Amino acid sequence: MKQIDSSAVKVWMVGSIGIDDIQTRTADRKNLMGGSLPYGTVASSFSAKTGAVGVVGSDFPVAFDKRLQSFGIDLQGIQRKTGPTFRWACKYDDNMIERTTLLTELGVFAEFMPELPASFRHAPYVLLGNIQPELQLHVLKQAVGARFVALDTMNLWIEIAQPALRKVIRRVDLVTLNDGEARMLTGKWNLCACAETILKMGPKFVVIKKGEHGALLVSHKGIFIVPAYPVRKLVDPTGAGDSYAGAFMGYLARAGRVTDGVMREALIFASAVASFGVEGFSLDRFERLSSADIKTRVDELKRMVAI
Amino acid sequence: MKQIDSSAVKVWMVGSIGIDDIQTRTADRKNLMGGSLPYGTVASSFSAKTGAVGVVGSDFPVAFDKRLQSFGIDLQGIQRKTGPTFRWACKYDDNMIERTTLLTELGVFAEFMPELPASFRHAPYVLLGNIQPELQLHVLKQAVGARFVALDTMNLWIEIAQPALRKVIRRVDLVTLNDGEARMLTGKWNLCACAETILKMGPKFVVIKKGEHGALLVSHKGIFIVPAYPVRKLVDPTGAGDSYAGAFMGYLARAGRVTDGVMREALIFASAVASFGVEGFSLDRFERLSSADIKTRVDELKRMVAI
Repeated sequence: MKQIDSSAVKVWMVGSIGIDDIQTRTADRKNLMGGSLPYGTVASSFSAKTGAVGVVGSDFPVAFDKRLQSFGIDLQGIQRKTGPTFRWACKYDDNMIERTTLLTELGVFAEFMPELPASFRHAPYVLLGNIQPELQLHVLKQAVGARFVALDTMNLWIEIAQPALRKVIRRVDLVTLNDGEARMLTGKWNLCACAETILKMGPKFVVIKKGEHGALLVSHKGIFIVPAYPVRKLVDPTGAGDSYAGAFMGYLARAGRVTDGVMREALIFASAVASFGVEGFSLDRFERLSSADIKTRVDELKRMVAI
Repeated sequence: MKQIDSSAVKVWMVGSIGIDDIQTRTADRKNLMGGSLPYGTVASSFSAKTGAVGVVGSDFPVAFDKRLQSFGIDLQGIQRKTGPTFRWACKYDDNMIERTTLLTELGVFAEFMPELPASFRHAPYVLLGNIQPELQLHVLKQAVGARFVALDTMNLWIEIAQPALRKVIRRVDLVTLNDGEARMLTGKWNLCACAETILKMGPKFVVIKKGEHGALLVSHKGIFIVPAYPVRKLVDPTGAGDSYAGAFMGYLARAGRVTDGVMREALIFASAVASFGVEGFSLDRFERLSSADIKTRVDELKRMVAI
């Protein structure tokens, strides 16, 4: 899909970027570009000029840079370090939901200290992808122009870095996590109760992701039940949550304001974009994606929930 | 809630009726009225005059009859046999989703041969609750006035009586089952693929229930994503699927026609009704339910999915 080409970065994301090996029942793919950052920034780039903040090692393929650049991603925030790039491998169960991590080699990611390029500092929309909460906080402090900050996290940080995580949660506008993580963070089972507990920690919005079952947006104004697009040919679910969050933030950035109506439209748009992402490995499906494709699926989703 | 009091039965249901013992994390209740029939017929009775077809033993409490009559249920189809009533006991896990069956004593239900009262034969809406497929077929043959027939089933019949089950499926308009059952019946994982496979077996509509995640209505016209009402105080999930199916059929019966729009309204209505049912044991919550309560929740649900 053609990138949005405008001057300044409107939304930036910090996250992991690396090289993935992925096995599914029918395929075994090696050396794919992976991590939250490629999925999130590319999904955001469909709507707004997007910057990436991350770290790669000396073995990071030039082709991957070119691939991100082809989406118009601003790569000034990518640090280039000596040493191996973050590597991850997993094998999906036949149901394509559960997966076993086969390998995690942090490489240069272990020493990552994100720094915001000067040209990103005044960007209004910020997506703190799933990295160590201390690093999220460190980079957020540099974001002097941030008007709307979203935070993604994972079970690991809830377990081993919850005080720091709560500090970040207090400072952001939106928290997104999956149902299991929401339950772990709050100690509650009921997802509405989980969301209300998280709202009390500071943010104005909570998005609880439920995979193929969609998501819930909860704010003090109420609940929006977000449908998932029913994907027929699921190829690789990796990065779906990151694409979802990125597409959502890109949409907000393009809209330029955060109202209840815009949030709902943004979440439907994000469901559509994320549903394409899982139809291919890595960024494969995104490369063949047009605005018209996305619009078609957004319209389909709207018809699927219209009463 | 006040019953619908009109002359003839508009919808009837065949199913199990018995005495339940239910344990949850916080409660232990014995001798509750249970089975698919009470949940389904009462949920239907909110919209249309409903008849029940089932069997009870000599120990069936008179109070249970009175309770069903207070909802205006026509009990002419309930056979009274000598012997013990069907009994079932279960214990829910803390998550209130998984449960362990502690006891199943069929009693008079083992010899059940449903017969349709003359006054039910011309009723246009029929709900074949989850019983042996041969019995569903037997009673369906007596339903000369049936215009719209829905079928519910369970994993047991898919395993041990699939040829008979498929015979019933061929003769009905709508099949409803949960996600696990849909996968078991079709041997497919993707729920859209499951639904399409079931549509090829004969029915015009498939409703795949996903518990707290809502449901999918699939027809040759497309997909409707049905939201579940986010219940805050889940007391007892028993019978939720039966209430859902019953409320849905009652709504159709009242509407008197089956269009795409009516189906969608009926499913939202059913989500609302079923969400009340699980807020109490047995029919407790339904007894305190007003039309206004249901309307409030239907409106809430509509706002929760409006974009």
